[in-house]
Amino acid sequence: MKEQISEITLSDIIDAKKLIVGHVTRTPILNSSSINRITGAEVSFKCENFQKVGAFKFRGATNAVLSLSQSDAAKGVATHSSGNHAQALALAASHRNIPAYIVMPNNSPIVKSDAVREYGGKIIFCEPTLQAREDTLNQVVEETGAIFIHPYNNYKVICGQGTATLEILEDMGDIDCIIAPVGGGGLLSGTSLAAKSIASNIKVYAAEPEGADDAYRSFKSGAIVPSVNPKTIADGLLTSLGDKTFAIISKYTDDIFRVSEIVIIEAMKLIWQRMKIVVEPSAAVTLAAILSNSEFFKGKKVVCILSGGNVDLAKLPF
Amino acid sequence: MKEQISEITLSDIIDAKKLIVGHVTRTPILNSSSINRITGAEVSFKCENFQKVGAFKFRGATNAVLSLSQSDAAKGVATHSSGNHAQALALAASHRNIPAYIVMPNNSPIVKSDAVREYGGKIIFCEPTLQAREDTLNQVVEETGAIFIHPYNNYKVICGQGTATLEILEDMGDIDCIIAPVGGGGLLSGTSLAAKSIASNIKVYAAEPEGADDAYRSFKSGAIVPSVNPKTIADGLLTSLGDKTFAIISKYTDDIFRVSEIVIIEAMKLIWQRMKIVVEPSAAVTLAAILSNSEFFKGKKVVCILSGGNVDLAKLPF
Repeated sequence: MKEQISEITLSDIIDAKKLIVGHVTRTPILNSSSINRITGAEVSFKCENFQKVGAFKFRGATNAVLSLSQSDAAKGVATHSSGNHAQALALAASHRNIPAYIVMPNNSPIVKSDAVREYGGKIIFCEPTLQAREDTLNQVVEETGAIFIHPYNNYKVICGQGTATLEILEDMGDIDCIIAPVGGGGLLSGTSLAAKSIASNIKVYAAEPEGADDAYRSFKSGAIVPSVNPKTIADGLLTSLGDKTFAIISKYTDDIFRVSEIVIIEAMKLIWQRMKIVVEPSAAVTLAAILSNSEFFKGKKVVCILSGGNVDLAKLPF
Repeated sequence: MKEQISEITLSDIIDAKKLIVGHVTRTPILNSSSINRITGAEVSFKCENFQKVGAFKFRGATNAVLSLSQSDAAKGVATHSSGNHAQALALAASHRNIPAYIVMPNNSPIVKSDAVREYGGKIIFCEPTLQAREDTLNQVVEETGAIFIHPYNNYKVICGQGTATLEILEDMGDIDCIIAPVGGGGLLSGTSLAAKSIASNIKVYAAEPEGADDAYRSFKSGAIVPSVNPKTIADGLLTSLGDKTFAIISKYTDDIFRVSEIVIIEAMKLIWQRMKIVVEPSAAVTLAAILSNSEFFKGKKVVCILSGGNVDLAKLPF
């Protein structure tokens, strides 16, 4: 029965890649001999922190926007997000010269709303509750006719995120496994579907903060466990899985590793110090999974997907 | 008469490149559309923060070490430095399997001495005075027969630093100017000699902190003005010019821009936030020069050499 769950296949991800090429940055894959020495593994990093808007989210948003028919696109797109998806959708929409309506809680940091405006997004503030967010979004969609682009539980978004893995497999020789962070599961589901469809021997793992381990609990129990009061520095990984991402992850992801806050910060520091790149805590969970499971990953060729690099430099954990 | 001053030419820099290729990282040249928008210039960044040991210094140190005869090399190399040159020389020596004796003041941060040791350097601590440093170095050289490799006032070092510019000119189309930071002048002299010898129309500028503007004053007065009590966050730019670097800079550098501390920090933050890379304050002075002279650089194709990325993450200025 599982075979029927996923309504997308590798060919959809390949189509996404064709559609978004030239719009998204083909991000480099970097490594560090000192991180290899420290971990005992051969670790490569897919640097989505160098992606436009500083995060992989631009892939999915671009695929969703460019996939719209002319008449649908004309009305614009809408979403609720205060994070990287908001900026990504705003920029993707501006590239197609269509409006992007972004519903944000009225307690969002000004730096976030400023960034969305910088990319041309139209912000509609709402009360900081789930109900207000959904009501406001529905109202915006009704009034404008804009198409709602969910941050992750959307097949076009999932396929866009999967394009990072197509690039990994084009650029790398044999690899043993890929590790992606998991929040709502857009990146993880796209990664898992792409990797397993191309080379079933590649293991796909997720890394998740212990303080926001709803995906782990969902994966182990076989049913979506909502994220309730998550507590982690990895602020991109607070959300619950959606039905679409959960179905794909259940089928294609090999395992989920939980990581502690202290190791996330240690991993983040290592990446900044040794590789001289800026990554957000949500990206560092991937290296944290290796550091926390060094025997397991020893000698393995691992690719960590560094999801993004949007951090508040005034609030660093070190 | 000036023609006789410099005892090295472009061919020496080309020889250096041949000698060190495979040992040094060919660093990428990156740019940022938002930094271009903010500055009004077309700015590219030569990312020596991605160089081995995290700084351009590894180029010069490697050229100096690999240029030694077998018999000279056997005795090892020595220097006084608590900064990037110390780590660079230690690593370069370890690659040739020869000892590196590093004289460091006994008040150096432990993180610096640890880094030198990690690269295989033998540390000799001395009192934190110029006299003690020179006496200790002389003693080490006398006892071991090691060859002293000055951090910048050494032609092999200067030629090694100049190889970054050969890479820039290979990788880029027409450019209007190159901006390098200036401390002791090793990078600036190598950059100036390389660029002017290949394309005399390319302007070569230096950027220097106002609080350590001895190179500016030397350049303008025509005689070396020592650096006395320099005060700047750009801790790689505290030293005085040497006679060799001063001669080359006087001949080939077009101008030196002084930049304030506040703009250095602003430039550093811009690079971290927009480009997602870690650079040290000494690297950020180059962008600071553009920010401080926006009319002058408007519309120009500029390459900033980002000298390095070694910062103490616990002591960031933002």
